[in-house]
Amino acid sequence: MDQESQQVKQPRGARRRARTRANLLVAARKVFAIRGYHDATITEITETAAVGVGTFYLHFRDKEAIFNTVLTEGLEAMRQQVGEEIAHEDNPSLPVVVRAIFHQVYAQRDILRIERTGEGVAARSGGPGMLVEMFLRFLEQVVDLSPFSEEEIPLLAALLEGLMDRAFHCWWDEQDEPSPDLMADRVLHVMKHGFPDSLFEEPQKPFFAPSTL
Amino acid sequence: MDQESQQVKQPRGARRRARTRANLLVAARKVFAIRGYHDATITEITETAAVGVGTFYLHFRDKEAIFNTVLTEGLEAMRQQVGEEIAHEDNPSLPVVVRAIFHQVYAQRDILRIERTGEGVAARSGGPGMLVEMFLRFLEQVVDLSPFSEEEIPLLAALLEGLMDRAFHCWWDEQDEPSPDLMADRVLHVMKHGFPDSLFEEPQKPFFAPSTL
Repeated sequence: MDQESQQVKQPRGARRRARTRANLLVAARKVFAIRGYHDATITEITETAAVGVGTFYLHFRDKEAIFNTVLTEGLEAMRQQVGEEIAHEDNPSLPVVVRAIFHQVYAQRDILRIERTGEGVAARSGGPGMLVEMFLRFLEQVVDLSPFSEEEIPLLAALLEGLMDRAFHCWWDEQDEPSPDLMADRVLHVMKHGFPDSLFEEPQKPFFAPSTL
Repeated sequence: MDQESQQVKQPRGARRRARTRANLLVAARKVFAIRGYHDATITEITETAAVGVGTFYLHFRDKEAIFNTVLTEGLEAMRQQVGEEIAHEDNPSLPVVVRAIFHQVYAQRDILRIERTGEGVAARSGGPGMLVEMFLRFLEQVVDLSPFSEEEIPLLAALLEGLMDRAFHCWWDEQDEPSPDLMADRVLHVMKHGFPDSLFEEPQKPFFAPSTL
């Protein structure tokens, strides 16, 4: 084989490999979404991708490896889409970014569901870390933190991330409602104003029996 | 052996067995706290409890089993202590219960640290479920939920639980500060009033480059 034909062939081979890998990932995402991590099989993934089982092992070590790649690349895609959604804003405020995050997490909510089926298998995703990082950056620019101190910024970032995490998983793990805009409204309301005042008042009647806690 | 001596013997044997099991759990909690789940060995646990390795297997199937028992019983102890702390109140308000929870989680913060070392191994603890349950009961008694609707009570309960969870893990996984009372103050402030107002204003300068999200 002369050098020229090698130059032509190698990129073509690389392109084909990349296409096969991408097909396997799309197929795996479908199969994991339907079967969950534990019931999914490599055979079903390769059949869905229309490749042989041997081809699978050219790209991924095992089911756990492709599972974690599906999650990591799904998360990376969400991150990019959020960036694109807010790209036209010179200076996005926290509510603008929070809304964009809810839109994009909702658009890829199959990833939330897939992740849940593989608890204990899923590698620690970059998800929470990325959100905490973002909240830290916003909090560090805040001029008036009162009644909190600067030392409490990491706590505030963790609390904000906890709210987002619970919002993602409260409904969308199982159903498509509410819409991401409604969810963003609710969560932003809690972030800005807290929970309903009456929750903190003395209970009117003894509804809460301490012994049953 | 006549029936009478059997009746005397059985309870004594049962008491001894229960004592050995309790000693193994105390020893395991110490060893897991020092070594973490993965580096802890059954030998070190039995040596700490001053029993033979064979005795271990009379009580627990394997390391994972005793690990999960340490967590479950630790959590149950927390739950009971919270109940005792608020037992003198006829009608505890949410802030009173939240404070008691922070006190007792702090007192047993080794359990938080142990749980963290065994991520993926730790059986889904009853922890979050218990807190969500409690918040649901408070929310269901609230007379004025505005601007939220009754259908959103499960979301609000999940968000409240998310705040508690992040507060437990933000500092106490690694350090003993801040005190549980200070932590309860901070979290209750966020629950009641939300995060600092300036966080939601238009940023003053373009500190947030969307491309780096």
